[in-house]
Amino acid sequence: MAHELSLLAHIASIAAGQSAAFPHVLLAPGDDCAAVRTPGGDTLLLTVDQVIEGRHAPSPPGGWHSPFPGIDSLSRDELLDLYARKTIARSISDLAAMGGQPLCALCTATLPHDFPPEAARVLAAATHRWGAAWQCPVVGGDVASFASAHPGPLTLTLTAIGTIQGPPVHRAGAKHGDHVYITGHIGGSLLPSGLGHHLTFEPRLREGALLRHELGPDLHAMIDVSDGLGLDASRIAAASGVAIELDESQLPLSPGLTDAIRALADGEDYELLFCAPHAPKALGETPVTRIGRVTQGQGVRLRRPSGQTLDISSHGWEH
Amino acid sequence: MAHELSLLAHIASIAAGQSAAFPHVLLAPGDDCAAVRTPGGDTLLLTVDQVIEGRHAPSPPGGWHSPFPGIDSLSRDELLDLYARKTIARSISDLAAMGGQPLCALCTATLPHDFPPEAARVLAAATHRWGAAWQCPVVGGDVASFASAHPGPLTLTLTAIGTIQGPPVHRAGAKHGDHVYITGHIGGSLLPSGLGHHLTFEPRLREGALLRHELGPDLHAMIDVSDGLGLDASRIAAASGVAIELDESQLPLSPGLTDAIRALADGEDYELLFCAPHAPKALGETPVTRIGRVTQGQGVRLRRPSGQTLDISSHGWEH
Repeated sequence: MAHELSLLAHIASIAAGQSAAFPHVLLAPGDDCAAVRTPGGDTLLLTVDQVIEGRHAPSPPGGWHSPFPGIDSLSRDELLDLYARKTIARSISDLAAMGGQPLCALCTATLPHDFPPEAARVLAAATHRWGAAWQCPVVGGDVASFASAHPGPLTLTLTAIGTIQGPPVHRAGAKHGDHVYITGHIGGSLLPSGLGHHLTFEPRLREGALLRHELGPDLHAMIDVSDGLGLDASRIAAASGVAIELDESQLPLSPGLTDAIRALADGEDYELLFCAPHAPKALGETPVTRIGRVTQGQGVRLRRPSGQTLDISSHGWEH
Repeated sequence: MAHELSLLAHIASIAAGQSAAFPHVLLAPGDDCAAVRTPGGDTLLLTVDQVIEGRHAPSPPGGWHSPFPGIDSLSRDELLDLYARKTIARSISDLAAMGGQPLCALCTATLPHDFPPEAARVLAAATHRWGAAWQCPVVGGDVASFASAHPGPLTLTLTAIGTIQGPPVHRAGAKHGDHVYITGHIGGSLLPSGLGHHLTFEPRLREGALLRHELGPDLHAMIDVSDGLGLDASRIAAASGVAIELDESQLPLSPGLTDAIRALADGEDYELLFCAPHAPKALGETPVTRIGRVTQGQGVRLRRPSGQTLDISSHGWEH
């Protein structure tokens, strides 16, 4: 993962170097989404993510052919449905973190060379169904199989395109004196209940749009927690040129969890983390919790109940 | 490939079934690009393609680590540059086939688990450089590595987004009485000159835009030849509800080729095939050749010099 993060930083610097040549590119790599202006003046949000068998989702122990069930009594088709759901939901979560609304998506699948044809149909139907469920119709795609000489795991790629009226909410606007808030609970992926949150989370699309509507320009910075609270908070801090101090006793742990340090290592909360001078206590039925504040300096520190502070800037989950 | 084509047809039918729920989707899967209307009224063109080591581009015989060179005296970095070029060019060719102009692109790479970090940087830089070269800046992406337990080949995915003023040129408009034209030459991938055309072709972006400008509504149908002239012509024929008759003696074979039947099996010409009542003889320096006509019926027939006709509806190249 360190190698991937370093590579992504390298890519962001390449893209930044090109931005002068393309004034319609409003926001290049380095945020939840890129932002691009169309010739007619719309702002598009764009994000792409991959779900790879064995990395982001479990591999069925006996392979994709029968006999099933493998994992937690799921049938093969139920597991494929969760693959499709996660593939769509991760990108929807990125749109939510900018305050945007989905427009459409494109999906590719690279299939293991012996992937059963009927499983591919189940996967295609599930992808379209989950896209439609989040008002993000899958309008295009590509299907290829790995060659038998170069086998590979089931790999799904989803590009989601969204729209937003007015400026997107990015990572770089946190201000000294802001409070730090998070939606929902953290640590859900760690619960010992089967497949867990990381395949079944609900992207905070409605909440992102509500926050943008209610807070307006006071919504200074936002990100979805996809790699861990410490790591994602440090991205806001670095982009904004500030430090973030979180209060362990305030963290809204998922019911059943007591160890905040372990919960911080959960990379796939997909909650919205944001910085603002104020915030509502809830968005519909989703709680909003104040968990810390923005200060001068850099990095992310956790204030422990003992009074100690712990640097958690790199606390996250390795995919 | 038959399995993939059947799956793609299945997906097109799923997407068609959803289209009533999403009136902003102008054109769902089944053409070179999807077309979507933004809230502000712009028409976006969207396409996604994959380049998979061993399927769409050669695998270095000794793997991605030294020692190189493997293929045709190319260095590793030169081969990676061709991977990046092809990844971008295939999608640009799809935009060209609708008459559109590039807006931006998103790229993912799934790396073999032992892929050298410095090679990943070369690949990232090359992808951005080729995107910029076709006025299609890469604004976002994702990088992941295959887990060592599930190794896979180098896999690149590119989503390109374009724009178009007015209606896109799709496949379904060919009319009885139209002539059938093709840009450039066919069969170039078969030439015994090293890596060949399929990694170095020039997408016909300028030509697609010029045709749309010069022919206006007379440009009835267009496609890029990416799976073989027979197969791609049959897609126009099926979508338009017509038959296409091609004249073997008129086919503009790449210099050095004499066997038209073999040239037809070249799947990666990336020339533009279009149907119109008339056409210019050239677009800049790119020749345009009349190769047949649109008739009543269905399928694609090749009229041979002997007077025989041959059904070439499924003549293409298996990736």
